[in-house]
Amino acid sequence: MQTPLPDYLAHVIEACDIDNSGHLADYIPELANANPNRLALAMSTVDGEIYSVGDDDIEFTIQSMSKPFTYAYVLQQLGIDAVLDKVGVEPSGEAFNEISLGKDRRPKNPMINSGAITTHSLIPMKDDLESAEIVRQFMSALAGRELRFDEAVYASEVKTAYRNLSIGYMLRTVGILETDPVDIVNGYIRQCSILVTVKDLVRMGSVLANGGVDPKTGKRLLNRSVVRQVLSVMMSCGMYDAAGDWLSTVGIPAKSGVAGGILGVLPGQVSIAAFSPKLDEHGNSVRGIDILERLSRDMGLHLMEGTPSAQTIVQSHYRTGKDASLSVYVLRGVLKFTEAEMLLRILQAEPMDQSTIVIDLTQISIIHDVGKRMFLEGIDRLIDDGHTLLLVDPEQRLDHARTHKDRTLHVYQDIEDLIAQLKDAENKKV
Amino acid sequence: MQTPLPDYLAHVIEACDIDNSGHLADYIPELANANPNRLALAMSTVDGEIYSVGDDDIEFTIQSMSKPFTYAYVLQQLGIDAVLDKVGVEPSGEAFNEISLGKDRRPKNPMINSGAITTHSLIPMKDDLESAEIVRQFMSALAGRELRFDEAVYASEVKTAYRNLSIGYMLRTVGILETDPVDIVNGYIRQCSILVTVKDLVRMGSVLANGGVDPKTGKRLLNRSVVRQVLSVMMSCGMYDAAGDWLSTVGIPAKSGVAGGILGVLPGQVSIAAFSPKLDEHGNSVRGIDILERLSRDMGLHLMEGTPSAQTIVQSHYRTGKDASLSVYVLRGVLKFTEAEMLLRILQAEPMDQSTIVIDLTQISIIHDVGKRMFLEGIDRLIDDGHTLLLVDPEQRLDHARTHKDRTLHVYQDIEDLIAQLKDAENKKV
Amino acid sequence: MQTPLPDYLAHVIEACDIDNSGHLADYIPELANANPNRLALAMSTVDGEIYSVGDDDIEFTIQSMSKPFTYAYVLQQLGIDAVLDKVGVEPSGEAFNEISLGKDRRPKNPMINSGAITTHSLIPMKDDLESAEIVRQFMSALAGRELRFDEAVYASEVKTAYRNLSIGYMLRTVGILETDPVDIVNGYIRQCSILVTVKDLVRMGSVLANGGVDPKTGKRLLNRSVVRQVLSVMMSCGMYDAAGDWLSTVGIPAKSGVAGGILGVLPGQVSIAAFSPKLDEHGNSVRGIDILERLSRDMGLHLMEGTPSAQTIVQSHYRTGKDASLSVYVLRGVLKFTEAEMLLRILQAEPMDQSTIVIDLTQISIIHDVGKRMFLEGIDRLIDDGHTLLLVDPEQRLDHARTHKDRTLHVYQDIEDLIAQLKDAENKKV
Amino acid sequence: MQTPLPDYLAHVIEACDIDNSGHLADYIPELANANPNRLALAMSTVDGEIYSVGDDDIEFTIQSMSKPFTYAYVLQQLGIDAVLDKVGVEPSGEAFNEISLGKDRRPKNPMINSGAITTHSLIPMKDDLESAEIVRQFMSALAGRELRFDEAVYASEVKTAYRNLSIGYMLRTVGILETDPVDIVNGYIRQCSILVTVKDLVRMGSVLANGGVDPKTGKRLLNRSVVRQVLSVMMSCGMYDAAGDWLSTVGIPAKSGVAGGILGVLPGQVSIAAFSPKLDEHGNSVRGIDILERLSRDMGLHLMEGTPSAQTIVQSHYRTGKDASLSVYVLRGVLKFTEAEMLLRILQAEPMDQSTIVIDLTQISIIHDVGKRMFLEGIDRLIDDGHTLLLVDPEQRLDHARTHKDRTLHVYQDIEDLIAQLKDAENKKV
Repeated sequence: MQTPLPDYLAHVIEACDIDNSGHLADYIPELANANPNRLALAMSTVDGEIYSVGDDDIEFTIQSMSKPFTYAYVLQQLGIDAVLDKVGVEPSGEAFNEISLGKDRRPKNPMINSGAITTHSLIPMKDDLESAEIVRQFMSALAGRELRFDEAVYASEVKTAYRNLSIGYMLRTVGILETDPVDIVNGYIRQCSILVTVKDLVRMGSVLANGGVDPKTGKRLLNRSVVRQVLSVMMSCGMYDAAGDWLSTVGIPAKSGVAGGILGVLPGQVSIAAFSPKLDEHGNSVRGIDILERLSRDMGLHLMEGTPSAQTIVQSHYRTGKDASLSVYVLRGVLKFTEAEMLLRILQAEPMDQSTIVIDLTQISIIHDVGKRMFLEGIDRLIDDGHTLLLVDPEQRLDHARTHKDRTLHVYQDIEDLIAQLKDAENKKV
Repeated sequence: MQTPLPDYLAHVIEACDIDNSGHLADYIPELANANPNRLALAMSTVDGEIYSVGDDDIEFTIQSMSKPFTYAYVLQQLGIDAVLDKVGVEPSGEAFNEISLGKDRRPKNPMINSGAITTHSLIPMKDDLESAEIVRQFMSALAGRELRFDEAVYASEVKTAYRNLSIGYMLRTVGILETDPVDIVNGYIRQCSILVTVKDLVRMGSVLANGGVDPKTGKRLLNRSVVRQVLSVMMSCGMYDAAGDWLSTVGIPAKSGVAGGILGVLPGQVSIAAFSPKLDEHGNSVRGIDILERLSRDMGLHLMEGTPSAQTIVQSHYRTGKDASLSVYVLRGVLKFTEAEMLLRILQAEPMDQSTIVIDLTQISIIHDVGKRMFLEGIDRLIDDGHTLLLVDPEQRLDHARTHKDRTLHVYQDIEDLIAQLKDAENKKV
Repeated sequence: MQTPLPDYLAHVIEACDIDNSGHLADYIPELANANPNRLALAMSTVDGEIYSVGDDDIEFTIQSMSKPFTYAYVLQQLGIDAVLDKVGVEPSGEAFNEISLGKDRRPKNPMINSGAITTHSLIPMKDDLESAEIVRQFMSALAGRELRFDEAVYASEVKTAYRNLSIGYMLRTVGILETDPVDIVNGYIRQCSILVTVKDLVRMGSVLANGGVDPKTGKRLLNRSVVRQVLSVMMSCGMYDAAGDWLSTVGIPAKSGVAGGILGVLPGQVSIAAFSPKLDEHGNSVRGIDILERLSRDMGLHLMEGTPSAQTIVQSHYRTGKDASLSVYVLRGVLKFTEAEMLLRILQAEPMDQSTIVIDLTQISIIHDVGKRMFLEGIDRLIDDGHTLLLVDPEQRLDHARTHKDRTLHVYQDIEDLIAQLKDAENKKV
Repeated sequence: MQTPLPDYLAHVIEACDIDNSGHLADYIPELANANPNRLALAMSTVDGEIYSVGDDDIEFTIQSMSKPFTYAYVLQQLGIDAVLDKVGVEPSGEAFNEISLGKDRRPKNPMINSGAITTHSLIPMKDDLESAEIVRQFMSALAGRELRFDEAVYASEVKTAYRNLSIGYMLRTVGILETDPVDIVNGYIRQCSILVTVKDLVRMGSVLANGGVDPKTGKRLLNRSVVRQVLSVMMSCGMYDAAGDWLSTVGIPAKSGVAGGILGVLPGQVSIAAFSPKLDEHGNSVRGIDILERLSRDMGLHLMEGTPSAQTIVQSHYRTGKDASLSVYVLRGVLKFTEAEMLLRILQAEPMDQSTIVIDLTQISIIHDVGKRMFLEGIDRLIDDGHTLLLVDPEQRLDHARTHKDRTLHVYQDIEDLIAQLKDAENKKV
């Protein structure tokens, strides 16, 4: 069987292909030469499976979609508070290239140009590299291939960068920029000229969807708190000024670029990227917006469509051994707050006796910090109740694991071996 | 074992008990008499398990926390578009009791007083009941018990309702209200005087967390799209004016009331309510805010903390029968877009032959529309490949289920019976 | 000869009669019944000469043109500072019936409804009269006849006074109004229903043009500082929101009313009133605005058209008596700063000797305080120089006049008698 | 006698000398080195008499006080409409160096930096001179001496002109500036570095006070309409953001500069300049503001203090000749609308007969266009009544004068000659 998803995506872009409205970005001469008929769509699942259709190998400049990634990089390097000192997180109610600072002189958020230029200025020096090159390397790591600059677009933008220079000088005046604004603005424009395909974008986005871990490599590229911050800002400030409307009707944190790209990321679920160069009056890709609205509506891809996933933590529970004295819990999935609550609620049913409880974590894919803490608290209570607790955790997810009462836990590699041993021991006892 | 959650909640309110700042609501004389030391916290899981600590049986007036529920009621009755004609969804950047309309004369959102008064005016007449009584009945249904009005608070507020009358007359001037504003404002104030405990609030909130279905009764009280709308508006407009800050640091759709209550709802996960009468300068409970921040931070309860739940859809897969000719998939959990994608990806591994595939949906708790459509598309493709498809769906989740190609599906009640039959048949064939 | 002014005014309204655009005020039912073709124009010189043409005997309701007069009354009764505590003086950039307060909760100025309602609330109680009746009496004094209320318009407005009630309740909320807003709003609406003709209006305006003195009676009705305040506020806040445009293109402090009246006052020069019921989108009389623009342009009636009047203070200077020992100055006109400066400059030419100087103030029409002070200082210096100073001041304008050095001045009734006496004395001396 | 005015001015600066608050401009390094104790005050009457006290020979940079003069120059060269296309006339409600454009992208007014930079950009090329040099020459003409640039201040400002560059680039983006903003900004900064004394300023201001004519030379340097526009904009936009407060409490069109200068101009009366380098939070000289407030209050120098000058137009009227058949009117002062109205009203008293009327215009200082037109209309009517009209107008003020009915007027050089002739003729007739 072929999964129908590519067909579905193809169907979506066909439906959107009809809308021929909008215009090419005209303020950057080089962008005005783009082929207006290009159309591409890609989607990555949170575990890194990528589907794509249309002109999915065509490169275009990333433009403003670079903003969340540079923001992520700088948050990761400097910490959230240091960045908040320079750039706020509130919607600006302004067009993407407006000039306005908050009362505290900070740019209102990192998704408008003033905030993005400031964010670029915060990139820490590294190995004498230019700031835009540092960004390019970081984005290449996210994309899983070497991205490159579009020198023609860069040259074209630099020549008429009046608005960004205006912003840069204003930021210099109020002390938000601390060095020559011309260099910083040029660096920012260079960052915007990085070439990507929709497949690159969804791969980059999948790291955000997956809480900062590259699903292809398993490597953590960004802290969980950084990802939360980036997605929050994309949600409240990413798409023009009608933040409330975007949240209620689409409900996907997103960012678009004037070359016609748009990237949406639904945490824990998918990243989506579309590309079509014709823009609406807000500077967003007409078809790109259409595609995101359609996917949200048709696929139930909306931040407020919560999945009641709690019921799934206990894969199976059975009693075995002599007199069913052995209570075995096989867990599965992700151990976050809601799942931990569910697990503990189930464990409440264990009678207060001296029986042995085995908990198998082998199939747990992710353990959040709070999940671990709640789990360990439960373990303590079971031991206090008189139980013997045995854990199967071959990947040592609870490596430093001592319980709250500082008990060292007995951890085993394999559930079947363990049960065999236990039964064996029982038999011997008898 | 006792689950440690109540202890954790008790620990949270103890920690917050220290902060004695803030002041009682002074603009409503009756509220100024509240006991400032009251402190309560409750939490409901998405499946309706309620934990609570502190003064959890103390009733207080719901005040502005009534806004999302009346909004939900009106959305459910009139549809989203009809309500959007009268009230917007954009953050207002204003205090809870400011007077300001959007350019189109609509109140900016239903969480500020102008929007809430307008929402109240939209309640359709029913059985000659007063509008506030209709709201009371609806909220009682959500809370699972008969709620009642606090007549003293109502009388006290009506006497000095200058600001709400000012708002009401302004709305009448621009034609947003179509009848006498005094009656509507009084109705709205009455709605605000409904008495609740934190346990009531989280039960009411659990319906929102659970996508509109009361987890205690399994009855659908609100459409999924209504819930999405309500939670979106709570997220972008619910907590004072710093919408971006609330989203990034707390990330829980929420609404507070000047009697000291605050209610947060994390879709698919939990609802949380706190009660402590002392307010900050925004009119929010000082300790209530503190509690929500703490729970978000400590429990990872944040909208952007996506759960990568996709891996959990296939509970088990095994081959059985003669020559392992029978491929059995036992599914589990929720079948939404992400899970459907995962399932279809797994099914791709089925070789193109004429074997029989059994899919057991018994343990699927919820099937979203999009999940159903994708699933049926996959079925079609497997049949096209030559497979025989047999479904176990005792609850008839796919009741009307014909596939996209209009094939009638073979649906069975019990997986074990089915497999036994199949094996039996095989044996006979041989 | 007949003065051509009435013909000129008739010509102006004929020229404006062509413009038939605009619409009748629709928000007050009674006003919608007005005859849209009415057209009247009146002008009063600063000395009270009134010219008028068109429907100059037709009464219409004064509406917002009552605002500057009630403001004047309250300023006169309470003093400027007390009124500034409640109402500001800054342009609001808003339509005449917007709802908005400054940061300090004060209405931005007394020409918008919030400020005018507040101003009305400040009218001090007098003889158990209603506040609107007090205003009516004051305006009647200015108009020189008993004005009356239009009860039908009043009744009509009160019925649908939603916006003013909205404003009233908001002002009550913030404590700017201190009693029941319904009574105050009704009083304000009653004030607006006073009936006037364009001739009444220019007579009322002539008191403002003339610095607070009724030119017909010579009685001071308003302090000079009150008039300055009222005219300043009319200039910066009187005509819709484009204060800078009105000042530069028309340059006449003005106020209009929704019944179609408009009143302009150019201090020291003229007051002008027009009446034509059709309104533009700002609520100003279309033809009324046209007329004021035309008069400003054609007649040079503009605040920035300063008259260099200084040269005119010394009507004549001659020497007489034996050896021309008597130096006689006949003054004329107004003695303000600029004229006093000019006079003193001329007096500098007097040689330092012991000759006698006669100054005739008979034809001085007005002596400002600063003019008096500078004049007396000059007298002192002339006396110090050795001169004998003799003043002719039959009206005792310098009644309390002692110089700065506390010299008592010799004041005479008639210049010719005086000179005759002096010559006589000289002859005797010889 | 010495006129007491210098003593009065000395008294004013002594009184203001006490206030030592404020701080030197710090954003331009060179200005921070100024002597903070400098204090000077000058005043020019409308006829060009200059009084000054304190450090009245100390030069300082004109800074923002250059704005009204460059505005005047550009208005004079291009006409008001052409300039209005690029720069508005509305108060901005912003600090002097804010960045903000109106909805139509135009700077809100020429007194804020964006408007002043735009104004500078409009200076037409002349003889290959730099734009700042053209301004310098124009200002030198107004000041009556060669002004020069302060090269050190210029160099200092150019180095840190971040805010002005920000503004320049923004104006370039929206197309208000049409060439390289760096050149224009540098030209503007150079314009601001012109050195003046308070005596220069009041002489420059006296041209504005005198309606565009240099009172020292009698040459018209600016059109009357240009002056009206410049003063209107100084009134509504010149002094920080509280335009209404400045108008009501001071009532003098004014502009200040960050070097500590402030210039006020009261049309038809005086120009005033003060200099004291310490600035308040708005960037205005602390003592300068104090001085203007004091002069307004003490001297009655306020735009709304209208002078009722109408009574002064007829210097004398007498009948002479046989049977008093000759009616002689000697006029004096300025012939504007109000004076013409008064004159015509007096002429109405002439009986309808065939007597001869002589009108002597010798002492009329200024004849406004409207005054001339009304006067000629009156003449026509008198001739229609049967009178013979004879005018004495040695300066040919009514040079092209034909009446409205196209009658050629009889104009004479000298009143005494004329009357002698007339009497002579009468005698001969007899």
